[in-house]
Amino acid sequence: MPLYTVTTQSGVLDAKRKADLAEQLTSLHSGYAGVPRNWVHVIFQDYAAGSGFTAGVPAAPAALTLNIRDGRSADYKRELLKRLWSLLQAATGAADDQIVIGIEELPASQAMEMAAIMPDVNGPPRP
Amino acid sequence: MPLYTVTTQSGVLDAKRKADLAEQLTSLHSGYAGVPRNWVHVIFQDYAAGSGFTAGVPAAPAALTLNIRDGRSADYKRELLKRLWSLLQAATGAADDQIVIGIEELPASQAMEMAAIMPDVNGPPRP
Amino acid sequence: MPLYTVTTQSGVLDAKRKADLAEQLTSLHSGYAGVPRNWVHVIFQDYAAGSGFTAGVPAAPAALTLNIRDGRSADYKRELLKRLWSLLQAATGAADDQIVIGIEELPASQAMEMAAIMPDVNGPPRP
Repeated sequence: MPLYTVTTQSGVLDAKRKADLAEQLTSLHSGYAGVPRNWVHVIFQDYAAGSGFTAGVPAAPAALTLNIRDGRSADYKRELLKRLWSLLQAATGAADDQIVIGIEELPASQAMEMAAIMPDVNGPPRP
Repeated sequence: MPLYTVTTQSGVLDAKRKADLAEQLTSLHSGYAGVPRNWVHVIFQDYAAGSGFTAGVPAAPAALTLNIRDGRSADYKRELLKRLWSLLQAATGAADDQIVIGIEELPASQAMEMAAIMPDVNGPPRP
Repeated sequence: MPLYTVTTQSGVLDAKRKADLAEQLTSLHSGYAGVPRNWVHVIFQDYAAGSGFTAGVPAAPAALTLNIRDGRSADYKRELLKRLWSLLQAATGAADDQIVIGIEELPASQAMEMAAIMPDVNGPPRP
């Protein structure tokens, strides 16, 4: 964790834009959360043209969902959302009404990485 | 929000069925929740034949996940599930044991749209 | 429920490995949770090469997310995570720093299957 999933219509983000956005998300998250860069995973899931809709009509919404461990403050999450918004909008060029960002929290005990159950956000450091 | 993600085997929903289902989900949700139509986003994610399984054997399960803000009553959510079930089953023709629908709630403060953190369900209207 | 979503780079899991892993996940989950095999759905979502990143550089992370009803103990979930880890790592051959597994819980009342709202984990059996 974090696991970023960026969902856009095929063609909106080419290989270079994906690589650039992945680097930006990783640098932002690692610095902001104070976690090692290699905890940050980013997966881009493209959907076919004709598979996205806003207001019931064809559109190309860009969605970013972010799985993190719970235990962060509301202020932490609000500020993170705003920074993610800027990065995603710059990368996709999507209008304000075509971007959705959501933070999904999991108890650390419900996530496993590096072959170990995740440590609590405010707990002792990983051995 | 809401963000609907409809996951079906490639070919189950052609372009017209996707457009029709997106319109139906949007009309249902906007009317039921009392939110503007342009808050409703629908993304179809197809998976390749041979990538779906039920009971450990190849199948074509149809999954709908719905991200909404928390704060709605249990009755509200139960009724919404039933209405979504009807729409998804009519569109896909899937059998009862091939449909899964889940509502995932987020605190409004963990979601951002229209360049703003989402307002609470029972809070003051968005300025 | 459960709904397993296995996200890997295209080509990591061929048709046979998907079928084998789906069978293994189904057998594990059905036995461990004490639920019928046909409650277990597995969907593989491949992403294109060049769409996965770890630590900001191209990689092929393997992510498994699992939607279950809430009500299970922390010990239950920790043990489940460890067993899932073994299966996913054996199937994908991914290194420890390329695997992410998360359990996402939903209130039973927010999930619908078999044309019925899901029963509580510790409630009376489904009629």
